[in-house]
Amino acid sequence: MAHEFKTKRLVTFADTDCAGIAHFAGFFRYMEDAEHEFLRTLGLSVQHVFGDGSTMGFPRISAHCEYSHPVRFEDVVDIHLWISNRRKSQIEYSCVLSCDGKEVARGQLAVIACRVKAGHDLEVTDLPEVYDQALDVAPFEPLKFRFQPRLGEEGPS
Amino acid sequence: MAHEFKTKRLVTFADTDCAGIAHFAGFFRYMEDAEHEFLRTLGLSVQHVFGDGSTMGFPRISAHCEYSHPVRFEDVVDIHLWISNRRKSQIEYSCVLSCDGKEVARGQLAVIACRVKAGHDLEVTDLPEVYDQALDVAPFEPLKFRFQPRLGEEGPS
Amino acid sequence: MAHEFKTKRLVTFADTDCAGIAHFAGFFRYMEDAEHEFLRTLGLSVQHVFGDGSTMGFPRISAHCEYSHPVRFEDVVDIHLWISNRRKSQIEYSCVLSCDGKEVARGQLAVIACRVKAGHDLEVTDLPEVYDQALDVAPFEPLKFRFQPRLGEEGPS
Amino acid sequence: MAHEFKTKRLVTFADTDCAGIAHFAGFFRYMEDAEHEFLRTLGLSVQHVFGDGSTMGFPRISAHCEYSHPVRFEDVVDIHLWISNRRKSQIEYSCVLSCDGKEVARGQLAVIACRVKAGHDLEVTDLPEVYDQALDVAPFEPLKFRFQPRLGEEGPS
Repeated sequence: MAHEFKTKRLVTFADTDCAGIAHFAGFFRYMEDAEHEFLRTLGLSVQHVFGDGSTMGFPRISAHCEYSHPVRFEDVVDIHLWISNRRKSQIEYSCVLSCDGKEVARGQLAVIACRVKAGHDLEVTDLPEVYDQALDVAPFEPLKFRFQPRLGEEGPS
Repeated sequence: MAHEFKTKRLVTFADTDCAGIAHFAGFFRYMEDAEHEFLRTLGLSVQHVFGDGSTMGFPRISAHCEYSHPVRFEDVVDIHLWISNRRKSQIEYSCVLSCDGKEVARGQLAVIACRVKAGHDLEVTDLPEVYDQALDVAPFEPLKFRFQPRLGEEGPS
Repeated sequence: MAHEFKTKRLVTFADTDCAGIAHFAGFFRYMEDAEHEFLRTLGLSVQHVFGDGSTMGFPRISAHCEYSHPVRFEDVVDIHLWISNRRKSQIEYSCVLSCDGKEVARGQLAVIACRVKAGHDLEVTDLPEVYDQALDVAPFEPLKFRFQPRLGEEGPS
Repeated sequence: MAHEFKTKRLVTFADTDCAGIAHFAGFFRYMEDAEHEFLRTLGLSVQHVFGDGSTMGFPRISAHCEYSHPVRFEDVVDIHLWISNRRKSQIEYSCVLSCDGKEVARGQLAVIACRVKAGHDLEVTDLPEVYDQALDVAPFEPLKFRFQPRLGEEGPS
């Protein structure tokens, strides 16, 4: 079982805005891409295909980021992602992003397992066993946010 | 003085992802664009130019969004944005996004006024008088989040 | 039958990059969004649903843009899009983007009608009759490019 | 002197659209990011800082891409970029993108060296000597396009 993942990310030109810094919305792609990379290292995917050909995805139920320092074109961002909470059908990822050893942002993504039905309709489902057996909650102190995030209610959201 | 703003936004093809729905990170652009449109209606800009040619911007100190229903290509999203809090140098915007009368997401952006110095360095500054006189805190009940957001500490972040 | 469409577009903060101007790749979204808006005015969509529930899309076979002047945050871009060529299954759109009466870019998109099969596989198909009857080639002089674009060969690409 | 560069790129979730494939405009970011990575390997940057603190950038004068096969989430794209032409102040990059050994797209970017003046104004300039000495035109047959690209006229665009 795994509970954390570390990766690096270069700030690209298209990531920046006319304030000369990485645009804030891009940090959510950074966190999401790290989540997907984490799952891949475990042989899992955010797009799960069941034996019968039907699929499951993980739409986000909440996304949060707090920014402490700007990053700029060609900065390398160190990303530390871990599982901070889990329920039957939900996973909560927490994340610290650093640059040159200094934290630049911290965030959280809460996702919910959904079976994709005809017409792209979504139905909440329990985490499949392969996810259940591979993903562990990290034994870390909860990340301190000015916002105090927590997972959503179970059930269709 | 103004405290709220309403606008509409069409979900574009590039906004969507392979789950067939609008990608979650795009909602932060929706909220930000509404914030900027709100300021424009008041003759203000998120890129303020002082009399001496120096400039001020509003980097985000936190961004939060909770998602309740997916939206899809060519859906029209109704955006209701308001000022939910203010400090000397910070503004907190809250936002409800709806589609066909049903809430699809709610979010919050906290921004901090910063003077842009040489080399794109940022220095926290008080809200200029024109912003102070134009922007009012809305007399609404605070938006209920699963996360409980609040403004950051004053001072350089 | 219609052959041209005009619309406006505001350059958003997220559209810009650290050079202080709209990022070049965003112009392709501007052109695409204008194409889709054009189709909507005719009661058509870039995502066509046949009577049997199967769908058709228009993947791009080529995209081209030439840039003559930068645009910046909060600039309003006037977009003039027209159909410059058509074949059995292809449509070529040409486009001039202006700001304050001055051309800032010109481009071209060539798209090909494809039926979406199981597993997102694509199969080239003839333009359905509703498109064939609604879309006309504009009687304009071909747009002068430094590149000399033309439609691709018919057939699966 | 160097004339070519090879790199890899993973198709991310946010790169895809509701057609289930990578959105066409994203290929321009793929090509641009490869260009910047190429320059970095030579100790150069697309954001050049002169000894006097003034800066130079490379706005695009044209961008072109022809698409032959779709790519999807988590596909790995092999990118082969080379310098296909050069003038006093312009560089033309050509690019082939492949997946599993099969070409999926080919493209071209033409960029022009510009000194950034006060207020983000741009002025065409000759390629600085460090670029002139590091960048060579590749001895390859020109890439065959349905469009026949070539560099723009020299001079302010």
